[in-house]
Amino acid sequence: MGAFKMRGATHAILKLSESERHHGVVTHSSGNMAQAVSLAAQRLSIPAYIVMPENAPQAKKDAVRGYGGIITEVESTIEARQAEADRIVRERSATLIHPSNDINVILGQGTAAVELLRDYSDLDYIAVPVGGGGLLAGSAIAVHHHGEACKTIAGEPMAADDAYRSMQTGKIEKNESADTIADGLRTHLGDINFPIIQKYVEEIIRVEEAEIISAMRLIWERMKIIIEPSCAVPLAAITRQRNKFENKKVGIILSGGNVDLAKLPF
Amino acid sequence: MGAFKMRGATHAILKLSESERHHGVVTHSSGNMAQAVSLAAQRLSIPAYIVMPENAPQAKKDAVRGYGGIITEVESTIEARQAEADRIVRERSATLIHPSNDINVILGQGTAAVELLRDYSDLDYIAVPVGGGGLLAGSAIAVHHHGEACKTIAGEPMAADDAYRSMQTGKIEKNESADTIADGLRTHLGDINFPIIQKYVEEIIRVEEAEIISAMRLIWERMKIIIEPSCAVPLAAITRQRNKFENKKVGIILSGGNVDLAKLPF
Repeated sequence: MGAFKMRGATHAILKLSESERHHGVVTHSSGNMAQAVSLAAQRLSIPAYIVMPENAPQAKKDAVRGYGGIITEVESTIEARQAEADRIVRERSATLIHPSNDINVILGQGTAAVELLRDYSDLDYIAVPVGGGGLLAGSAIAVHHHGEACKTIAGEPMAADDAYRSMQTGKIEKNESADTIADGLRTHLGDINFPIIQKYVEEIIRVEEAEIISAMRLIWERMKIIIEPSCAVPLAAITRQRNKFENKKVGIILSGGNVDLAKLPF
Repeated sequence: MGAFKMRGATHAILKLSESERHHGVVTHSSGNMAQAVSLAAQRLSIPAYIVMPENAPQAKKDAVRGYGGIITEVESTIEARQAEADRIVRERSATLIHPSNDINVILGQGTAAVELLRDYSDLDYIAVPVGGGGLLAGSAIAVHHHGEACKTIAGEPMAADDAYRSMQTGKIEKNESADTIADGLRTHLGDINFPIIQKYVEEIIRVEEAEIISAMRLIWERMKIIIEPSCAVPLAAITRQRNKFENKKVGIILSGGNVDLAKLPF
């Protein structure tokens, strides 16, 4: 479905017992996780209940429906979404799958780094974006166990630098505002992935909006790969700190390509 | 450099004698062949003289210069370009490399189909776009020699259907106008590639402009690969004749991704 979330959603669903599968899964998301849970559940023939904000773009609702997700629309607040997801869990005995703060989701997200290290065992760094922290925590675990001298670093938008600040203060910080084009990275860390990130991530590098757009354009034009803005953040981070990465072998996880072609920043 | 022309240019240059290489190569092109010849020559440390129309986009001139090509700008007529290329051949003893009507270019272009058949030996069809005919002729030779029951088909814009008409009449037809978004396919066949196409190509399927744009968008959105309009033409052809290709295994050669991001059709 065009993003790494498919890995975490699939792994989390595969870990359910037969009885849990029978009752289905729930997630609340307006983005890639909604599609990932729908498609992963469809493949295993179990119901997927997706709580979406009523103002989510039609294209995203269509994609979720296309993958067999059963949508409930609610008011566009985190409280309304959480309450509705809780109600479905209660009434249908369905299992909630959190987009990033769930150990099986985290381990699933880590499989991209495992595969990358299998192909290139001599990487000095693996770079990923950080939003909710699932991909970063999963990649860091993978790098710790499968890498030789490899280290994990993350890129984060300056405009939503909660993870960077969390590393500084030692507690989960949130964003008061999150006005970044990297719309997948506006969320904050969770209590399951944060300790993993603290333990295994070398550095979180913050980048400006213009750097994100420029890195996105470079990947589009030179690699001919369609990536979404969030996905360009690690390349922007590497480029910003050229000196640190000079003569180093850096692997970047391209996290997703779900972008609205009618709203390109260039 | 983002298009299949790199294969043909490289093969043609590798076939030159040492003395020929010393004198360099010439091509006249406003598109991908100019970049391909420049880059292939640069890799072998030989001079590449590129004749370009003076009104070619600055981005294309920059790309050619970036790959080490030595540009001569001329009036934007085929006669002026041909005359200037001839002059360079005469004065510098350089070798002219035609973008599509040169047997070594044709054989180089065919390597993509060879690789595809190596990965998927059971293909029923390989589909490519047809413009000047180099990729089509090369692919058809490759399919004939390396395929099992595989056949070669081509997609062509209705608005520049010279190759389709050439197959009907048995002689090389030209386009009176060629108002198609698939700007790489406006050229006509040559006397070297046409007999190969006549002998080994099963069918040329013509498509409308809207079908090209829709196929292009589908590849962007679902495969997350940036392709240029010319590259979408074979998928448009397959889609147009769904019945013929139902339950068949069809390989499509994605021919290039050099597209101006500021001028997208969607």
